[in-house]
Amino acid sequence: MDKPFLDKLRKIDPYVPGEQPQAKDIIKLNANENPYPPAPGVQEVLRTFDASSLALYPDANGKRLKTVLAERFGVKTAQVFLGNGSDDVLALAFQSFFCSDKPILYPDITYSFYPVWCDLFRIPYETVPLSEDFCVNIRNYDKPNGGVVLPNPNAPTGRALPLDAIEDLLQRNTDCIVIIDEAYVDFGTNSAVSLLKRYENLLIVQTMSKSRSLAGLRIGYALGSETLIATLEAVKNSYNSYTMDAIALAAGEAAVRDEMYFQQICHKVIATRERAAEALRELGFTVSPSLSNFLFVTHPKKEASVIFEYLRQKNIFIRYFKLPRIDNYLRITVGTDEQMDKLIAALKEFL
Amino acid sequence: MDKPFLDKLRKIDPYVPGEQPQAKDIIKLNANENPYPPAPGVQEVLRTFDASSLALYPDANGKRLKTVLAERFGVKTAQVFLGNGSDDVLALAFQSFFCSDKPILYPDITYSFYPVWCDLFRIPYETVPLSEDFCVNIRNYDKPNGGVVLPNPNAPTGRALPLDAIEDLLQRNTDCIVIIDEAYVDFGTNSAVSLLKRYENLLIVQTMSKSRSLAGLRIGYALGSETLIATLEAVKNSYNSYTMDAIALAAGEAAVRDEMYFQQICHKVIATRERAAEALRELGFTVSPSLSNFLFVTHPKKEASVIFEYLRQKNIFIRYFKLPRIDNYLRITVGTDEQMDKLIAALKEFL
Repeated sequence: MDKPFLDKLRKIDPYVPGEQPQAKDIIKLNANENPYPPAPGVQEVLRTFDASSLALYPDANGKRLKTVLAERFGVKTAQVFLGNGSDDVLALAFQSFFCSDKPILYPDITYSFYPVWCDLFRIPYETVPLSEDFCVNIRNYDKPNGGVVLPNPNAPTGRALPLDAIEDLLQRNTDCIVIIDEAYVDFGTNSAVSLLKRYENLLIVQTMSKSRSLAGLRIGYALGSETLIATLEAVKNSYNSYTMDAIALAAGEAAVRDEMYFQQICHKVIATRERAAEALRELGFTVSPSLSNFLFVTHPKKEASVIFEYLRQKNIFIRYFKLPRIDNYLRITVGTDEQMDKLIAALKEFL
Repeated sequence: MDKPFLDKLRKIDPYVPGEQPQAKDIIKLNANENPYPPAPGVQEVLRTFDASSLALYPDANGKRLKTVLAERFGVKTAQVFLGNGSDDVLALAFQSFFCSDKPILYPDITYSFYPVWCDLFRIPYETVPLSEDFCVNIRNYDKPNGGVVLPNPNAPTGRALPLDAIEDLLQRNTDCIVIIDEAYVDFGTNSAVSLLKRYENLLIVQTMSKSRSLAGLRIGYALGSETLIATLEAVKNSYNSYTMDAIALAAGEAAVRDEMYFQQICHKVIATRERAAEALRELGFTVSPSLSNFLFVTHPKKEASVIFEYLRQKNIFIRYFKLPRIDNYLRITVGTDEQMDKLIAALKEFL
């Protein structure tokens, strides 16, 4: 063989992240980013940060940020885990908690990274079909499993489960870890945080990328029992002790401290979502009930891929998934009112 | 069982990162941090960074930072990999490149994370003893293996190998990946970068935490053949596509662009190291020849642990490893001239 070292390499299908459009004058509704800036305190952190302190390692434990998160959610600091975006947190959780021969369960239509992590960590899995209208039926999870992952609300559908359904799931799955992925929870869904007191096998994963407008800083976190968090910490510290940089830690803290601003921008996104959903329905779209910062829509007369391409020509970027069951749907991130007006106008023109 | 989910958890010895002293008036020579601030351009990046852009995801590929690194090292952009500190890069490299049943090889005295990653990823390994005076004998690596990891210079010894020894190692190990961990290379050691053209199985890992004074920002990188880098990217993108945040990417770029400042602070650290080594020898210490930003020392008449404790009382923090073969040695990070003068004065008093 020409390159005899090749057989030592990990065989893996390259997972390539979606290309992001770089032009400046586009309307970017394709990555579920927040159209509003982060809390003003974040700009202040950057403006006043003493760069010379960057010569030192950050706090490996991220104690200050964990403390404000613990206060915000009414849990102990030892119940908070920090990661480099919620993908990092979820990847570590898959590694830490799905160590059995039984398949883990998650919906057939959901976050596309779940099967990637299962393949990477060689975790057996089974997908559980959503109903025709993309609802999760908790009863379908009543089977032997090595763990459950459920995003609430789900993506890319935007549909959410009420808290009693989550509790039902937990009651039926006390012998495995149940991960509730709450990346989009702040746009109208009830968080499962109140269930943490009663279920030590519950892990809640959240992110600052959506509702805190900090996708650029990579801050995710998990809330769970001290047992689960200690295991996550042990695995994380065996991988990389210093995942969170000093600036992300400080900026994240500033974002969490500004509860009023946070509520304000979440409400603005929700109001715009409802307004845009109504306008899309008026144009003939079927719009899934969304409790997230995006809308999942289909049109009875026009192909999704054609709409997607048309909008792209107009410099409006939304998301189209060429996947089974949803290949005639579009995911549209909720932007500002102005951005959504332009989207609606373009769609009106098209139709 | 009270908690029936416990058997799904990963069994792992918790690896706990060393506690960092938090007091302000200490002399911190225990973590191999740079005593000088990062390049002035880094402060400028922070001062002028538009926080509203943080609402968007960063460039998953880190193209701008990869481009300046590629220019700096005379390689292609596709030969550069970025990670969240060199620990992240090394962890991914272990996962990506040590996929055989044969043990990987590394020195018995070296970076303490290597066995941790082997345990985490279930990679068989064998340690190769250093000589009595902590030298690497390349001939000891002439045996069947699944890969080789060699830090150059080594830590905590500070001793370096010349480039022809590294090339010798590569010539004898064409059927596996050889990782040269160059975390401390900028303080006087010859980098193996010039060998990349001839050895496609060579991966060089460097960090901005030491010579670039950016430990707080978590920026590591690897240089290697396009084949190796593509595999690293595939594994990384299957784990977490967005590891590098927007500010780290911009600050790292500013640091690499200021070659003159970089050379300046490296030379200052080297000059202080030589001066401090001489002063320590005058006090009776045996000082290993160091080409890094730390000194590895022992005293024929005083126990290392006692010296360590004495200095700690004086608010001078150095590093003591209670490990076989080196439990009478101390690792002292090279600080400023002023810090080293205070260290020497305290030691003089003690002796």
